Amino acid sequence: MDKLGLDSIFHPRSIAVVGSLRDANRPAAMYLRQLKSFGFPGKLYGVSLGTTAVPEFETYQRVSDIPGPVDYVISCISAKTVLELVDDCIKKGVKVIQLFTARLGETFEASLQQLEREIIRRTQEAGIKVLGPNCMGIYYPKGKLTFRFHYPSESGPVAFISQSAGNVARLISLGTGRGVRFSKAISYGNGAGLNESDFLEYLTDDPETKIIAQYVEGVKDGKRFLATLRRAAATKPVILMKGGFCSAGNRVAASHTASLTGNRVVWDAALKQAGVIRVDTMEEMIDAILAFMFLNVPKGRRVGAMCGGGGDSVVTADLCEDAGLTVPPLPQEVRDEIKKLSPEIYPIIGNPVDYSALGDQPIFTKISEMLATHPQIDLLLGDAEVAWRLDESKGLDRIWVMIDMLLKMREVSGKPLAVIIVLPDSGEVWKWESLVEMQDKCRQVGVPVYPSLKRAVQAITKFVDYHKVPQVAIEEQLPQQIHADKTVVA
Amino acid sequence: MDKLGLDSIFHPRSIAVVGSLRDANRPAAMYLRQLKSFGFPGKLYGVSLGTTAVPEFETYQRVSDIPGPVDYVISCISAKTVLELVDDCIKKGVKVIQLFTARLGETFEASLQQLEREIIRRTQEAGIKVLGPNCMGIYYPKGKLTFRFHYPSESGPVAFISQSAGNVARLISLGTGRGVRFSKAISYGNGAGLNESDFLEYLTDDPETKIIAQYVEGVKDGKRFLATLRRAAATKPVILMKGGFCSAGNRVAASHTASLTGNRVVWDAALKQAGVIRVDTMEEMIDAILAFMFLNVPKGRRVGAMCGGGGDSVVTADLCEDAGLTVPPLPQEVRDEIKKLSPEIYPIIGNPVDYSALGDQPIFTKISEMLATHPQIDLLLGDAEVAWRLDESKGLDRIWVMIDMLLKMREVSGKPLAVIIVLPDSGEVWKWESLVEMQDKCRQVGVPVYPSLKRAVQAITKFVDYHKVPQVAIEEQLPQQIHADKTVVA
Repeated sequence: MDKLGLDSIFHPRSIAVVGSLRDANRPAAMYLRQLKSFGFPGKLYGVSLGTTAVPEFETYQRVSDIPGPVDYVISCISAKTVLELVDDCIKKGVKVIQLFTARLGETFEASLQQLEREIIRRTQEAGIKVLGPNCMGIYYPKGKLTFRFHYPSESGPVAFISQSAGNVARLISLGTGRGVRFSKAISYGNGAGLNESDFLEYLTDDPETKIIAQYVEGVKDGKRFLATLRRAAATKPVILMKGGFCSAGNRVAASHTASLTGNRVVWDAALKQAGVIRVDTMEEMIDAILAFMFLNVPKGRRVGAMCGGGGDSVVTADLCEDAGLTVPPLPQEVRDEIKKLSPEIYPIIGNPVDYSALGDQPIFTKISEMLATHPQIDLLLGDAEVAWRLDESKGLDRIWVMIDMLLKMREVSGKPLAVIIVLPDSGEVWKWESLVEMQDKCRQVGVPVYPSLKRAVQAITKFVDYHKVPQVAIEEQLPQQIHADKTVVA
Repeated sequence: MDKLGLDSIFHPRSIAVVGSLRDANRPAAMYLRQLKSFGFPGKLYGVSLGTTAVPEFETYQRVSDIPGPVDYVISCISAKTVLELVDDCIKKGVKVIQLFTARLGETFEASLQQLEREIIRRTQEAGIKVLGPNCMGIYYPKGKLTFRFHYPSESGPVAFISQSAGNVARLISLGTGRGVRFSKAISYGNGAGLNESDFLEYLTDDPETKIIAQYVEGVKDGKRFLATLRRAAATKPVILMKGGFCSAGNRVAASHTASLTGNRVVWDAALKQAGVIRVDTMEEMIDAILAFMFLNVPKGRRVGAMCGGGGDSVVTADLCEDAGLTVPPLPQEVRDEIKKLSPEIYPIIGNPVDYSALGDQPIFTKISEMLATHPQIDLLLGDAEVAWRLDESKGLDRIWVMIDMLLKMREVSGKPLAVIIVLPDSGEVWKWESLVEMQDKCRQVGVPVYPSLKRAVQAITKFVDYHKVPQVAIEEQLPQQIHADKTVVA
């Protein structure tokens, strides 16, 4: 457990931010203001040689001038003056230095790479932990650490480790809106100090983290990373995105975080073997995280679906089966019941249930609940595909009926449900507001919402694959197959 | 040219809508109100036995009671009374009957399939063209025909033929917001009368249509469809989505439009051979349409990209190369110029250009224009990925600088440009409004906007593949390769 002693990084008693404080919107002043506004409970100091536009913070000329202890230093100064800061931090007994400072190793210039190595040599000798260079640092809602305004103050089960500062901001910002909440997020940049393996190892044993997400371009020590990854993936779900696969991506990654990104085939095989959940874009990462955060594990892969219209039902069935889920016909008992209740509707209702054909008739409730609770159905999918239906007369009301029905289907059955709410790629603001309200209602009860059917199905498949959910829930089917005279409809 | 005489369908002098008019929101009354509000210039009649909630229309008890000529009849009555209507239309000399009426062949009930056949037999004998059953009919902005409120009155180059009524509404509604404009859109449902091949043939020769999009589940005559498709695809771009591939999709398609959807392998091979552009979802269809509507054909596949941040650049390069585009290094002349202007920025700027590293410095303009106009760059890609950057101080202003720069790059170079504006999957309304404004600005000058990098790259690839754009523009490269002493940086 935490052999590297990384837990201390997340619990500094005091933070000093070093850099120009002349402008409240420049990095150093921003770090201070963000930490304060987020409620960081320890002491906050500014370290600056010049004038300061942030008079609400105690400011000193050097870290060593600060009277109290300083656990954590954020460096926003230029690379050429970092060594001086390092020496001052050693003198002061600082525990962690985070280098927001960039333009070191990633420039591939010999003198700057040498400088980066010297920083690491001196800090290692002094037992100081280094985060970066070229990184945003830490977002840790429980400890009130942040590197940006507007991040949620409540914690969640997801940890994110990112080599890219941009991708950590992307994931938190876009993920937050969709219901992702974080235990810890770490941007480690060039990883000259602490790297991808160190944090992965730490989070594997971190009780606050249930799901690990990671963006990596290259690794410092392939063998160690792979071993660490194997143990992590055996302990909790690890959702990984690898950047810099192609020759161009590779070249760009090199100049981004000085990473040697390595061969694709080798990576593919290694990640597969490690049992890692792979994604190709940040959107897919958020999609997958939502599935792992919110869905309970189904017994099988048989989808009971509800869709907005005919063509949509066809596409739903296609996408599900393409992805390794199945969409069985409506179970016989449900069909019999429909025939009894409405012979007219009977011939045109199947699975997916076409909501547009049923409207808000009472039979709709009956069919939905029978489908949801049927033992031959393992998981539920509802495509509200709202955007274009809002133009219909009473469209909004009707979609709300569907959303409420879907949430009820989940409640009565206890089966995992994902809801698709297709956002307009553009359009009127009132639609947007209606959609956000619907999304929020689903999220509030722990139902993941996806902006397209394809993305929902891909995320669900990653989830059931990870949990090795069988193609057919054999234990449910067998008794019927043995005792029934007629062939089981599969 | 129009051997089938289909052009007349789009130019009726008068339309009679048959069905219950008691409620202004029921189908028949809706058709009338929509046509009137859209400005249909001919006569509009209601045909109803009972009371009517739409007193602004002349209403009769039978089509044959209408005093003037009736070219086009829309049937919203139930299936069991359709034959009576058909006979009355024959008596009146009607030219086209559109059957919004459903629950015929698609129910797979023998008596209803027989009824559908009888409708077709009688109308064919009388020389009446039938659209449907189970369809929405026609949207033809130039002729002021529509089946829904809120569709744009201006025309465009795209025709859409859809077996699914839902998918035609989806495509028009979602596509309109993104800048798609239509010559004609046709929902033909079960296709018992006019079918997928008839309309495809017609649109191949339709001078108002530059791009054909089609959603098909199954076809009536495979051999004819394939021959028609080949000729269509040889004449103009045909973007096709096939529903009902998997066993479940297949089953659902059968009960949706009574289609025999056929074997996947056969379809795949046939469509590829025909030179058709394939898509898997309605979103991909809109993405592809935008590329074909707005992009000019580049000489090669070398992308000059501009992105919002480091990790994003890596992912951009990966996605481009995965899809068959290339992201070459920044051309030597541009690099030399950067070195001269800013030795500090030099080591960290490449292609994609990292906008976040440049900010709004004047050098940014210089680099962007040099990259855009360089002969080794064929097409331009700008990832504004706005959603999460809006949280930054001055984020909105900075993104506007980028958008303006991208549009200028296109203007000075004349090269095709696609812009990515990542929408928040959820979130605050002010962000949404800002994004819509940005999207509109791009669209107004004919630049396609995509909601994700992956979708943009996929659409562009379909476009350059269709136009057989070579991997490297050899004619540009050769002189250098022959005359230069040093190796060409490729």
